[in-house]
Formats: sequence, C-alpha cells, structure tokens
Amino acid sequence: MPDLTAVVLVCTLKPSPSESSSSLIGQQLLSELESHGVEGEVIRVVDRNVRFGVSTDEGDGDGWPGIRERILAADIVAIATPIWMGQPSSVTKMVLERLDAELSETGAEGRLSMSGKTAVVAVVGNEDGAHHVIAECLQALNDVGFTIPASAGAYWVGEAMQATDYQDLDDTPEKTQQTLTTAATNAVHLASLLRTNPYPAG
Amino acid sequence: MPDLTAVVLVCTLKPSPSESSSSLIGQQLLSELESHGVEGEVIRVVDRNVRFGVSTDEGDGDGWPGIRERILAADIVAIATPIWMGQPSSVTKMVLERLDAELSETGAEGRLSMSGKTAVVAVVGNEDGAHHVIAECLQALNDVGFTIPASAGAYWVGEAMQATDYQDLDDTPEKTQQTLTTAATNAVHLASLLRTNPYPAG
Amino acid sequence: MPDLTAVVLVCTLKPSPSESSSSLIGQQLLSELESHGVEGEVIRVVDRNVRFGVSTDEGDGDGWPGIRERILAADIVAIATPIWMGQPSSVTKMVLERLDAELSETGAEGRLSMSGKTAVVAVVGNEDGAHHVIAECLQALNDVGFTIPASAGAYWVGEAMQATDYQDLDDTPEKTQQTLTTAATNAVHLASLLRTNPYPAG
Amino acid sequence: MPDLTAVVLVCTLKPSPSESSSSLIGQQLLSELESHGVEGEVIRVVDRNVRFGVSTDEGDGDGWPGIRERILAADIVAIATPIWMGQPSSVTKMVLERLDAELSETGAEGRLSMSGKTAVVAVVGNEDGAHHVIAECLQALNDVGFTIPASAGAYWVGEAMQATDYQDLDDTPEKTQQTLTTAATNAVHLASLLRTNPYPAG
Repeated sequence: MPDLTAVVLVCTLKPSPSESSSSLIGQQLLSELESHGVEGEVIRVVDRNVRFGVSTDEGDGDGWPGIRERILAADIVAIATPIWMGQPSSVTKMVLERLDAELSETGAEGRLSMSGKTAVVAVVGNEDGAHHVIAECLQALNDVGFTIPASAGAYWVGEAMQATDYQDLDDTPEKTQQTLTTAATNAVHLASLLRTNPYPAG
Repeated sequence: MPDLTAVVLVCTLKPSPSESSSSLIGQQLLSELESHGVEGEVIRVVDRNVRFGVSTDEGDGDGWPGIRERILAADIVAIATPIWMGQPSSVTKMVLERLDAELSETGAEGRLSMSGKTAVVAVVGNEDGAHHVIAECLQALNDVGFTIPASAGAYWVGEAMQATDYQDLDDTPEKTQQTLTTAATNAVHLASLLRTNPYPAG
Repeated sequence: MPDLTAVVLVCTLKPSPSESSSSLIGQQLLSELESHGVEGEVIRVVDRNVRFGVSTDEGDGDGWPGIRERILAADIVAIATPIWMGQPSSVTKMVLERLDAELSETGAEGRLSMSGKTAVVAVVGNEDGAHHVIAECLQALNDVGFTIPASAGAYWVGEAMQATDYQDLDDTPEKTQQTLTTAATNAVHLASLLRTNPYPAG
Repeated sequence: MPDLTAVVLVCTLKPSPSESSSSLIGQQLLSELESHGVEGEVIRVVDRNVRFGVSTDEGDGDGWPGIRERILAADIVAIATPIWMGQPSSVTKMVLERLDAELSETGAEGRLSMSGKTAVVAVVGNEDGAHHVIAECLQALNDVGFTIPASAGAYWVGEAMQATDYQDLDDTPEKTQQTLTTAATNAVHLASLLRTNPYPAG
C-alpha cells in the first residue's frame, strides 16, 4: 500500500478552544484512518480566517491558501460538520465554495486538481439532518472531482427535537462507530487504488 | 370563523390494511385540525391507483382526479409521509408531480387553482430526515400556490440508525405532539384569513 | 392597509462595492414591495461583520444584532442569494443559523419572535439550483416562525453550465420579473393580514 | 481490462413508446460506456410494473426482481431521471427505495450486495434542478454501497422557466456531452479497479 495522507476539515461554527462535537467526530474519523497507516491532521477551519469567496486565494490575510496546500497534498479529504436546521454549517458551505475554484484548476495532463482524491463526510447533530448534509457535501465534493468510496457518510443524531450533544454521550454509539470504521476502511482502499491507478488524463 | 375543510394525503408505500406510521401521524394531524372545527378526511394515496404523470388526469382508471376533487374543495391540504433514505417517499413525489399540473390551472380571476389554500406537512421515520423532507414538500407545494403557515412541519424520528417505528411508541412524544398542535393551529388561523381575504387576482 | 416594512438580506459572498447579481435581484424585489407602499431597505450581510454562531449576539463586534433589530422591526423579510454548486451561499447559511436563535425567543404572549412575519426568497445563478436553494431557505425560515406566501420564490438561472451573470443580462427576463411581482404582491397581502390578525398566542 | 457490464435505469414517468428526454440521455450515457467496451442495456422502469416498497420482492407480479437481477450482474449502474419541481422523479425515488433493501443483503464474505459497484447519474429538465437531483441520487446510492467516480453527474437543463425539452434540441450541447463523456470514462476506470480489487470484507 502506498503511503497515504489525509486532512479532516472540521467545520464547527465555534473557534478553539470551545469543545465541539464535530471536532470530536472528525478526530475519531482521523483515528480510524490512522489505524490503516494513513498520516493526517485535523484542521478547524473557523480558526484560520478563511474568507468568503470562490477563488483559490481571496488575498488580505485569507487563511484558505494554507488549507488548500494541505488538501492538494492529501489523498483523502474529510469534512466533519455539525447540522444546523437540518443543513450543513455555513463553514462547510464556505469550504465547498472555496473548492469550487478547483473546477478551473487542472494539472499537467489536464486532470482536475482534485482528481484522484477520495472524500468522506462525518456529521453530528442533536437531532435530524445527517442524510441531507451528507447529500449536500458528497454532491459538491464529487462535482469538483473527488471520488466517493462506498458508504462514505458517518454520522450521529439524537431523537427528534432532543438537545444532547454527541460530545456528551458516555460512549460512541456502536452503529455510529461502525459507520466511521466503514467509511475510513473504504476510503483507504479506494485512495490506495487511485494513487497507483490515476484516472485517464482529461 | 368560516367553515373550513381539510384533506390529509397519507403517502405511505404500504396499501391498506397494513399499519402505517405516516397514516398514524396523518390521523393525529387531522384530529388537531378537527379540534378547531375543521371537517376533514384522510386519503391513503397508495390505495387509490394513482398513475405517474404531470397532468390532472392520466386516464385509464387514474385515481388522481378523485383525490384532486377533494383537494380543490379543501382549505387545508396536508401531506403525511414516511422518510426513506432521508428523503420523502416516492408516493409523496408522485403526489407533488400531479400537483405540478396546477401551475397551468387558473380560475376565473386568473388565480392559480391552489391559490388561497394552506399546506402543512407531517413526517415520520425510524431515524433522520424530517427537515429535508419538509423542505422538499414545502418548496413544491409553495411553488404551485399553497401558502405555508408558521412552523408548518410536524415530525418524529428516532436516534441515528434506530429501528423503532412511530406507531410502536407507547405515547406520542411531547415535542412531536407540540409540533402537531402548532402546525394545525397556525394552519387553521391562516386558512381562515385567506378564505375571507383572497390573494389579489393574478 | 397597515404601514408595512421590509428588509432584504442580500447574501452575496462579495463585499461592497463589488457588483452583485443577488444584490440586483434583491433591489428589484424591494422595488416591487415599495410599489405596494412598503418601506424597506437592503442589507448586504457580508459588509456587516456578522460572526458565525447560533445566538442572537456573538459579541466581539458582531454585526448581527444590528441586522436583527431591523428584522424584528420588519413585517416582511427577504433573502436574496446567489447559488454556488447548486446550493445557497455560505452567507445565507450564516444568516439562517443566526435566525435559529429565535426558536428560544418568545414575546410577552408566548409567540415566537418571528411569529407574524412573512418571508420570501430571491435567487440567481449562472445555471441550475434555484428550486433547491428556495427549498433550503423556506424550510429554515418557516421552522423559526416565518409564514410563506404563495409562490414565494423568485429566480433566474441560465442554461446548464453557462457563465452569464444575471446582472449582465440586457433586460430582466419576463418570467423572472413575473416571479418577483407575484412574490412581492403575495407577501404584502399576507403580511397585511397577519399584522391585523396575529396567530393565537402559543 | 475486465469485461464490464452496465445497466441504465431510465426513470421517466412516461411508459413506452412515448418519447422521453431522460431515455435519450440514458441511451447517450450507455453509448459512452459502450465506447469503452462495456456491455449494457437500458431499462425503462415505468414499463416494468415495479411496486412501491422497500423489500427485494414485493410479490404479486412485482417487476423489481427482474431489474434487481440485472443490477446484481452489473458493474456500473446508472440512473437517468427527469426533474420535476427541482427534484428527482417519483420513479427514481421508487428505485432508490427498492435499493434500500440491499442494506440487509450481504454476500458470503459480509460485503453489501452493492459493494464494488459503481454508480453515475444523468439528469435532464426543461429548467433548473440538476445539482439537487444528483445530490439526492448520489447520497442514496452511496448509502447502499455504490462507489461514486469523480464527476459522476451528467446533465442538461434550460434557462429559468423555459419549456424546451432535451430531446427537442438540435444537437447535444457540448458541455452536456462533456459531462457524459467524463462520467462514463471515470465510471469505467473505477469499475475496472474495483472488479479486480474488491473492498475488504466487512
């Protein structure tokens, strides 16, 4: 297996050092990836002064180019997001908008800059919304060139209109743990294949 | 208050006499409406031989024209739907597609056929998806001319990846009951206003 | 008719003085509202230093409380948003997240702070995505207490994968103009009714 | 390259022999796949008496088991769907619901029945909605175990509120053709890799 690297973009609305459930599930996803020998890091996007926009660099102290460099170097990119009102967080949307710029970025052989990279998603909320958040993320990520491994969405949500946070659960629920394990295992398998066997040049 | 009528379209995939959680929440919503003096009925769409299409009558024994007649006579139209894969049921989508035909139907004064009617939505699933289902239904219903009262979505879902059905709960959870009460109360208030004060002619 | 006020929240990613298609359609929507005697204003959210969060005031120079004051004073609230990757802009999502706080805000008689307010949406993009953006906005706005008038979504998008901006069209396409007129007319009618006839206390 | 097979599920609402734009784009997608040596077929789902449900066989003349057999035999599964009200067709939803049953179907080594299969989507509408339809389809297909190649969504839509059908265009627009070519090329590459290198057993 080739040496693989991963970056997990945590898209909580809360800057460090606030505790964050999406940060927790992001860390858990990274641990699963690391158990397969992947080297990776978690980036808490809201700490990095990322600017609104749809270019690769919005200037003026924009924190995105630093994050983008890590994405360009990674084989696996994960988004870890909270759910608000049944939808992905605004920080997640800001990340996806910045990735939109990659549609105009092609490498030496005409491949999209994200070609060959694999994407997965981890989602948490007090209640309801994970499937739709996964849909929004997978569609946007796939659109700019990411490949999506089988069962790429890991998640936890509570019962309707409950208020418990993921980070306050005593243990990770078994089924959520299973989705994390599966998403990571499949991501590693696929990223490994795509590293050795790139898509045909565009 | 004017005499108001309602029709609740239950969009379960299962024909009668199977028990159905969406049928249950549809009945509960109707009871709430009836407590305000509204007269109404529940229609289980899958029992009625409705055909796929986007016209008001697809012919060939199509069950839609009979349902449409009840909708045309109603002040309040509710959709009660199960969640499958985080999305509205195919039967719900079939109903929305049939309502698409109403965009071409205008009355004597140039108003859309659904103008002045109020819509609400009730959603149940084992887990996750209610907000998105509400979004899909409200957008489509609003598009063809329905008015949406405040807090128009009532719902219940269980914790992530659980398998309990709404109809197997011992009691209706208090918060779900609250969403039913609110949606019905607001629908009645708005329907009443719109009956007496129609939108300006188109 | 009571004196009505409106606020249009323009959710472009680009700060002033950049030209913006969503700013243009927001202004057009306001003009339509003004033609009915409504007094209103356009707020370009990205100019106001709004912070990420889900409270009414995130402190530290947060621009939201100033905007919130205008919303609390308004009868009609409109969101004007661009489409990115088929989805609402991150600035729109930031606004919706800030409005999420209103679920905990009730007035003297137990009504939600947004109760009685009417919401409409205007959407522009080079191509594809308006219906889904409208769905996301209407669901979230309705969830926190806004009432949605019939045909509340006005929009323009170009053909698949085209690059023309709304602001570069020679004229407003007739059908888009029609959606603006209808959304505004219906919003004014409904806001007027709700001002005189508030929802029952909660 | 291994011998690959594909099945394209056309999800138009109209039975044969009506002309159908989604049937056309489905055929075009199959042609692209065939140009890579893939053997495949188009199935018009609405012609097959598929029943509503979430099991692999709903009995009573259900047409799904016959389709399911073709899916089980295929390496690449495509959905070709029209857009109605900005959303996937009810027939598409019916197909996704039937595929939901596969979450309970595992093979000898504990892999999901859809594991190792690759999915792509082709979408057409008079106007607006392709991205969201792609999102709904990819999320549901990925959820049951399909892998999604880079840029898996091919589409055409017209300008806002236009009425031209895809099948009435003189030529396939270049950009739509490009999405078909890319989706097919990437699907073949990925399906080929996954045939030779299955995901680890569950």
